[in-house]
Amino acid sequence: MTPDQLKKTIGAIPDYPKPGITFRDITPLLQDREAFAAAIDLFAERYRDSGITQIAAIEARGFIFGAALAKQIGCGVTLLRKPGKLPGATVSQSYQLEYGEDSLEMRADSLNSNDNVLIVDDLLATGGTAEAAAILIKKAKAVIVEAAFLVSLNDLPGEQKLQQQGVACYTLCRF
Amino acid sequence: MTPDQLKKTIGAIPDYPKPGITFRDITPLLQDREAFAAAIDLFAERYRDSGITQIAAIEARGFIFGAALAKQIGCGVTLLRKPGKLPGATVSQSYQLEYGEDSLEMRADSLNSNDNVLIVDDLLATGGTAEAAAILIKKAKAVIVEAAFLVSLNDLPGEQKLQQQGVACYTLCRF
Repeated sequence: MTPDQLKKTIGAIPDYPKPGITFRDITPLLQDREAFAAAIDLFAERYRDSGITQIAAIEARGFIFGAALAKQIGCGVTLLRKPGKLPGATVSQSYQLEYGEDSLEMRADSLNSNDNVLIVDDLLATGGTAEAAAILIKKAKAVIVEAAFLVSLNDLPGEQKLQQQGVACYTLCRF
Repeated sequence: MTPDQLKKTIGAIPDYPKPGITFRDITPLLQDREAFAAAIDLFAERYRDSGITQIAAIEARGFIFGAALAKQIGCGVTLLRKPGKLPGATVSQSYQLEYGEDSLEMRADSLNSNDNVLIVDDLLATGGTAEAAAILIKKAKAVIVEAAFLVSLNDLPGEQKLQQQGVACYTLCRF
């Protein structure tokens, strides 16, 4: 299955979560075993033998693609979670939402300068969460290999925001 | 890596989230690429060729094991999420927490009577969430093959609760 065929398995829900927004719905892709396998295989083709030690998977849907890819390429999974979900000492990075702000947490002992890290999430939109992920990984002095997304939304500034952090993006399906 | 070796990679945090409770911390297992791969391989050995069409993965840490296993055995992933996270028409099942209640949601069109479903979560404790998952899957008239957990806590009634729903449990590491 090519990225173009994969794209056809992603649903579009108009005016969700609010008028004027088209929600890109990945649940049909996940339920289609060939499409899900193809997405992970396409990522694995790119990242196999690239020396990645950890995939930084962003809660919650980033866990889906991050974990399946980590198993396939043989690396560990580092969780980037919403506040208060990780035990032990954590580092935290806040980011802007449309209204207000949220933050992302990582265990303080997760990564170090020997790690080559791939950031994984399902969808890149404004890039606030992915930027917070990049800042957390840099704080731990680990190397960011790239950031990988199933979907990117072309008319939102996610990629530019990551480029400003010196992080390249790879996306399977663009809308 | 055997289940006993795997068990040694799971951390214990005393008195978290409150005094008297020992929190079983799976983040060291996830970060250890051999341990994470072994966990998925042990599940895959059991469920390969068992006719599973969908893994019902429980938010959020169930996504990690559910998705990696789905890729490995070649089935789809059905998300069981916290309220308000899934677009489109959903079915919902509430369950008791220690104080108050919460609920689990599934897309109404996710499963049907042709599906053989494996429930996956990281940890089975009181079993409230897993029981809600079983009820949702039965509402869709799908067959539940089993429920699989990385960790089960022996002194809590999770397994009994699932047995009352006619659902057998499989666990890699017991505490």
